[in-house]
Amino acid sequence: MAEKYSYEHFNIAFPQEYVAHVEINRPTQLNAFFEAMWIELGQIFTNLSSDPAVRAIILTGAGEKAFTAGLDVKAASNGLLSDSSSKDSDPARRAVALRREISSFQDCVSTVEKCEKPVIVAMHGFSLGLAIDLSSAADIRICAKDTRFAVKEVDIGLAADVGTLSRLPKIVGNYGWVKDVCLTARLFGAEEALRVGFVSQVFDTKSNAIAGAVELAALMASKSPIAVQGTKELLNWSRDHTVQDGLRYTSIWNSAALQTSDISAALLSGIQKRKPTFEKL
Amino acid sequence: MAEKYSYEHFNIAFPQEYVAHVEINRPTQLNAFFEAMWIELGQIFTNLSSDPAVRAIILTGAGEKAFTAGLDVKAASNGLLSDSSSKDSDPARRAVALRREISSFQDCVSTVEKCEKPVIVAMHGFSLGLAIDLSSAADIRICAKDTRFAVKEVDIGLAADVGTLSRLPKIVGNYGWVKDVCLTARLFGAEEALRVGFVSQVFDTKSNAIAGAVELAALMASKSPIAVQGTKELLNWSRDHTVQDGLRYTSIWNSAALQTSDISAALLSGIQKRKPTFEKL
Amino acid sequence: MAEKYSYEHFNIAFPQEYVAHVEINRPTQLNAFFEAMWIELGQIFTNLSSDPAVRAIILTGAGEKAFTAGLDVKAASNGLLSDSSSKDSDPARRAVALRREISSFQDCVSTVEKCEKPVIVAMHGFSLGLAIDLSSAADIRICAKDTRFAVKEVDIGLAADVGTLSRLPKIVGNYGWVKDVCLTARLFGAEEALRVGFVSQVFDTKSNAIAGAVELAALMASKSPIAVQGTKELLNWSRDHTVQDGLRYTSIWNSAALQTSDISAALLSGIQKRKPTFEKL
Amino acid sequence: MAEKYSYEHFNIAFPQEYVAHVEINRPTQLNAFFEAMWIELGQIFTNLSSDPAVRAIILTGAGEKAFTAGLDVKAASNGLLSDSSSKDSDPARRAVALRREISSFQDCVSTVEKCEKPVIVAMHGFSLGLAIDLSSAADIRICAKDTRFAVKEVDIGLAADVGTLSRLPKIVGNYGWVKDVCLTARLFGAEEALRVGFVSQVFDTKSNAIAGAVELAALMASKSPIAVQGTKELLNWSRDHTVQDGLRYTSIWNSAALQTSDISAALLSGIQKRKPTFEKL
Amino acid sequence: MAEKYSYEHFNIAFPQEYVAHVEINRPTQLNAFFEAMWIELGQIFTNLSSDPAVRAIILTGAGEKAFTAGLDVKAASNGLLSDSSSKDSDPARRAVALRREISSFQDCVSTVEKCEKPVIVAMHGFSLGLAIDLSSAADIRICAKDTRFAVKEVDIGLAADVGTLSRLPKIVGNYGWVKDVCLTARLFGAEEALRVGFVSQVFDTKSNAIAGAVELAALMASKSPIAVQGTKELLNWSRDHTVQDGLRYTSIWNSAALQTSDISAALLSGIQKRKPTFEKL
Amino acid sequence: MAEKYSYEHFNIAFPQEYVAHVEINRPTQLNAFFEAMWIELGQIFTNLSSDPAVRAIILTGAGEKAFTAGLDVKAASNGLLSDSSSKDSDPARRAVALRREISSFQDCVSTVEKCEKPVIVAMHGFSLGLAIDLSSAADIRICAKDTRFAVKEVDIGLAADVGTLSRLPKIVGNYGWVKDVCLTARLFGAEEALRVGFVSQVFDTKSNAIAGAVELAALMASKSPIAVQGTKELLNWSRDHTVQDGLRYTSIWNSAALQTSDISAALLSGIQKRKPTFEKL
Repeated sequence: MAEKYSYEHFNIAFPQEYVAHVEINRPTQLNAFFEAMWIELGQIFTNLSSDPAVRAIILTGAGEKAFTAGLDVKAASNGLLSDSSSKDSDPARRAVALRREISSFQDCVSTVEKCEKPVIVAMHGFSLGLAIDLSSAADIRICAKDTRFAVKEVDIGLAADVGTLSRLPKIVGNYGWVKDVCLTARLFGAEEALRVGFVSQVFDTKSNAIAGAVELAALMASKSPIAVQGTKELLNWSRDHTVQDGLRYTSIWNSAALQTSDISAALLSGIQKRKPTFEKL
Repeated sequence: MAEKYSYEHFNIAFPQEYVAHVEINRPTQLNAFFEAMWIELGQIFTNLSSDPAVRAIILTGAGEKAFTAGLDVKAASNGLLSDSSSKDSDPARRAVALRREISSFQDCVSTVEKCEKPVIVAMHGFSLGLAIDLSSAADIRICAKDTRFAVKEVDIGLAADVGTLSRLPKIVGNYGWVKDVCLTARLFGAEEALRVGFVSQVFDTKSNAIAGAVELAALMASKSPIAVQGTKELLNWSRDHTVQDGLRYTSIWNSAALQTSDISAALLSGIQKRKPTFEKL
Repeated sequence: MAEKYSYEHFNIAFPQEYVAHVEINRPTQLNAFFEAMWIELGQIFTNLSSDPAVRAIILTGAGEKAFTAGLDVKAASNGLLSDSSSKDSDPARRAVALRREISSFQDCVSTVEKCEKPVIVAMHGFSLGLAIDLSSAADIRICAKDTRFAVKEVDIGLAADVGTLSRLPKIVGNYGWVKDVCLTARLFGAEEALRVGFVSQVFDTKSNAIAGAVELAALMASKSPIAVQGTKELLNWSRDHTVQDGLRYTSIWNSAALQTSDISAALLSGIQKRKPTFEKL
Repeated sequence: MAEKYSYEHFNIAFPQEYVAHVEINRPTQLNAFFEAMWIELGQIFTNLSSDPAVRAIILTGAGEKAFTAGLDVKAASNGLLSDSSSKDSDPARRAVALRREISSFQDCVSTVEKCEKPVIVAMHGFSLGLAIDLSSAADIRICAKDTRFAVKEVDIGLAADVGTLSRLPKIVGNYGWVKDVCLTARLFGAEEALRVGFVSQVFDTKSNAIAGAVELAALMASKSPIAVQGTKELLNWSRDHTVQDGLRYTSIWNSAALQTSDISAALLSGIQKRKPTFEKL
Repeated sequence: MAEKYSYEHFNIAFPQEYVAHVEINRPTQLNAFFEAMWIELGQIFTNLSSDPAVRAIILTGAGEKAFTAGLDVKAASNGLLSDSSSKDSDPARRAVALRREISSFQDCVSTVEKCEKPVIVAMHGFSLGLAIDLSSAADIRICAKDTRFAVKEVDIGLAADVGTLSRLPKIVGNYGWVKDVCLTARLFGAEEALRVGFVSQVFDTKSNAIAGAVELAALMASKSPIAVQGTKELLNWSRDHTVQDGLRYTSIWNSAALQTSDISAALLSGIQKRKPTFEKL
Repeated sequence: MAEKYSYEHFNIAFPQEYVAHVEINRPTQLNAFFEAMWIELGQIFTNLSSDPAVRAIILTGAGEKAFTAGLDVKAASNGLLSDSSSKDSDPARRAVALRREISSFQDCVSTVEKCEKPVIVAMHGFSLGLAIDLSSAADIRICAKDTRFAVKEVDIGLAADVGTLSRLPKIVGNYGWVKDVCLTARLFGAEEALRVGFVSQVFDTKSNAIAGAVELAALMASKSPIAVQGTKELLNWSRDHTVQDGLRYTSIWNSAALQTSDISAALLSGIQKRKPTFEKL
């Protein structure tokens, strides 16, 4: 299993049945991202999305210092953030190139959201910039109490562009707070993140946070995959549509999903007070 | 008045002028719902919606144990959740039948939201599955401190399909928490419900919760019904539309509503320090 | 500078470089608004929006008693709220006139949201009715601990129509609370406003709140204006669109914005540990 | 079969297997509608929608003179169009009553669109006002060459409100023509209706138009009902959504529908050069 | 009346009661537009929109050669289209300036669409670029047979940006043709414009086209202004919303509009076979 | 160039500078598609989309008999359309597999729409099923007079699911005709396709149609690629958004695009009466 998931910048492990653990593996550079890394991330989540041996996923960062310090600014200076003058004298042509690069970067981050299985992010240490984009694309965020968050982008002269500004206002219900942290780029800690609902739980240490994430993932993985994956999809659809379109889509979705044998398996095991097993999906 | 509202599975009372109290009445079965009940519920809220003698509504469950334990699974096993093999060999035809059943069920629950008068739900004890769908369609949720909530559906192998997944993310501003409770089906209590904003108030006992609901309903019922019903409608419209479409719709709505005599009645009684009375609506 | 901004009902000051302070100036009447005031307010924010000398704005109310008590009901009784019988015998023609008046009023309030620079509102004392509409159109709300808020409109027989019902549900993630305060018109205090996320911070006194607002504005004004103004715009767009439309719009926006010299200015000053300066915008 | 469908103001016949013919039956009054009629119409189409013996429907008007001359203005003068002064002195309360009446009328007309089976309208003679609302809610419109159409509402002082203004611009791709006929209320004939695409075919006589409608309905009724009803639903969904939402909804819908045995039935009968038969739906 | 409407670049006349005629008046330059002209156009249509003496408007161009040849490219070369190098070294700042200029230009053109009264454009001769933007914002387009149209923008190196690309696909129902003329910038004539539905009628001469426009405007102006203006608004709303949102908006709109005395005036004059008169609006 | 574009099921040629010609190459099977073909098609259009040597594309089918007869039903019987019983006993799991297959198929077809360059489809002979899906995703459709079209899917028991039902109603403005051909699966010819606007031009022979397509493509390829590609994108965005969102998106897009040197190149060559050349894009 793990052999199938051998990557250069990420470690993939399977701590429990049906649970995958993706670890960002560039601890010497605070897990800062460059282009090859987000492309690899996109491949990993695309593969996990349809792997029947996986029913829930956790995402963490290697090392003690950071989940990720965000974009590797030095690397980006030769790419996305490079000086325009050195490249192309026509700002319109430069804009076309930038739009393609940003879209391609966004698509990689969005694989986390599009992944059919629930994704839990466990953060610690520096969790800056891209850390917010990435974790906002996940389903659930938890963290260690030492975590230091920031929507760091305005500090390097740009508006965040791979998801934070589109997803964060729909994750936490405090639009003033979102404006505050996005417009000031200030640091905020685990407790504040918990209070506004950006994270669901705070743990004493990184390893406890990871253990908590595994436990939560294992719980989800023990349920009917038809039910769990349908629930993720329907919640994401509803976020972006009216209640009425949500209800309609739900009725179409469940017109197939309710025909699953998981329902009788779940009901029967409920009566028999035992853990149900569900067919592969 | 109460005679007009005589139903088999619900008790209807009028504890105060302009306030209706709808009680789910199947306490021996933890107020679990079967099809005839949700059809009746739909009829009740449709009738209350246009009854000029009603200006606010509370919804509660009979007995000490539960607001409602949700769907009566045994009854549903012969209907919605029945084994597909026993019915129809063609999954596409079975899907059509299921879609119609789900839509019809959704329509009954949605009468609570479409009811022109504010609806306050006071919960206690077990408040599982359909309890969340129903109360999410209401305007305000309060509860007794013994209430035990769960979005229970994944535990029986399905994604919730009569409103929770469409409405809950728009009621509480903590999308991670919504994902957590919907994907794990875990129980949560009154205090957690209060903290995330699912309920507005927690009372010591069921009877205090009901008294609180009646008081709140009576307060709303004392205001101009033109103003109160317009406010409910405009808030619901705005939830599902852009700010600009919200503003436009509001200006059209109020171009008629501002012509009400309630405004001068309210202003005059304000000056005279007495309680205004408003014409029937 | 201040000369350019001389207005009848508002004081405009510039407490720090790039920071404008707009003060509602009708303290003898609790800063209650009549038509000429909201027209003037619209002109002020339209001008500030494109003034390169301004990068952040704070909005406050003069006097000790109120940020604003809302609409001047006496003045409105001759306009918006006047008795229909005295005006026009045809309710349809009266509706056209009302629609135009409401739309024009809404447009003035919306200049706060459309202003390209961040707007921070610091409230104190009575902050009723229009106070909620106005501050909901701003980016960040803070207040003194003596602030008394109410969505007061139903008490005078109408549904709020210049923004509260469209914006408040998208600012705070507690829809039950929004329904509660909008349907009952009850007062709520600074602490409750903080708890539900309507305000971000509570200060001991009005002057501390203003000082806090200036400090926050100055922080935003010290960042790249390309980054800050882009962030405000992208967050507002995303509030009203799907995540996917948000991502697409962001990539188009940043295809021009990433070509700014602010990025190298910001990166260089970061390396050199000094405060960057940015070209006019 | 026909006994099940006995109505006061409509004749229902079954000219071919799986084809229902609904005839408006008030020829002495040019088939003009009053409230009881549109309520009955709504019941008829709701019933046909789920009747497995029906796979396509045609709608026509009795008598030689008119498909329908529209609203019975005399009857409406006591209801929808009655003088406001005689009813309620409060324009806001009158508006509530009107809104409920209009919505209820709209819901009846919309049953034609919501009907799961294709609906073909064959018109002749006067086809005014409500004739356009009704036929716009159908799937296909054909007519006799003597048909005289008009969006008549502005001639009686009102904007059409039961569907024409919402549906007509989405049916014909000539927005200038839609504006023209809606703003002038002028008559237009069969040829013009054909040229702009409002009708698909023009026949010499009413009886030929009906025969053509039956033939078209019979053709649709001979196809897989899973395929035909899915196609109607997906086209209607797509009209009101983006291409991307259309594609997504289609993939969910067909994930159940492609499991039908109709596909192998259709393929096999294609090979065997015979007419397929499909299970009831 | 005409005195009230004295403008520098436009002639305003009132050929019939309630009908305004706006003529673009720069014939020596083929009525090509520069900034002061579109600002003036915006003012004119804003004023006409609320003038009770006006119920329908026609828009034409002075001189024999052109309705308008579009943007005055020479003038624009110093503004919108000026060489970027000469202005600002920072493409991001230049983008902000351009965005403001484009938005402001768009707003002027959109006053034609937002005008509460129907607008009929009668074109002749060269009708290029901005001619398409402007006429697409109107309700009805007619032309003389000598008219030569082109969506000219790609020929000067840009995508049309003041409305053609947003409105044209919603006016004519032939998306391939829209792509063709927008991507090739080719000329097309009156007959082709009629065939695809871009214009509603073709007249032999310019003066006949104007006479036709006046006649059509006069017809609309003879109807109830409550009905006509409501119809324009509801059609424009429906173009941009789902059928369901269209129906809902219509029911709210008409809940006030149906209270008009115009209905009884129209019905009575119908019975009495005389022309109704309607109160000012 | 052509070497770079060597594919198994398609021939790629470059008949003119900047013009690519993609030919479906399975003439012995009427160019019917199986899975490997649509995957290859997706790769081709993704590559062409960003190739600076390509500015316009034409798509045709090899052989005399067919553009494409659609899905290769025999091949599909082992995949998408295979008998469900042979695969998976759980209809919900089968639905998941089907949804993934349909989505992946849709994504391949959508590469034609997402391709940044204009795509012109020239059809001839049988153009069934997938031929409509594919050509509807293109910008412009032309055909030979022998072309026989059909939305064939209902004849094999399914609703078209890779784009026709989502795109066709937005391409032709005759919704009744769309319903007719989609619900009956009947054949229609070149003349009918021209009349309803599905194709823009009809040519005598296949080779003339291809010559016409090349000429049209060459014309587009001679224009500023910044202007042409922006126009395609803005038209596609506007199709799926309100006019207001269209205008806003346009202003953002052009805030970068107007900074192109193509404008001065185009203007200068216009003055000098010579053909402009534009930088690579």
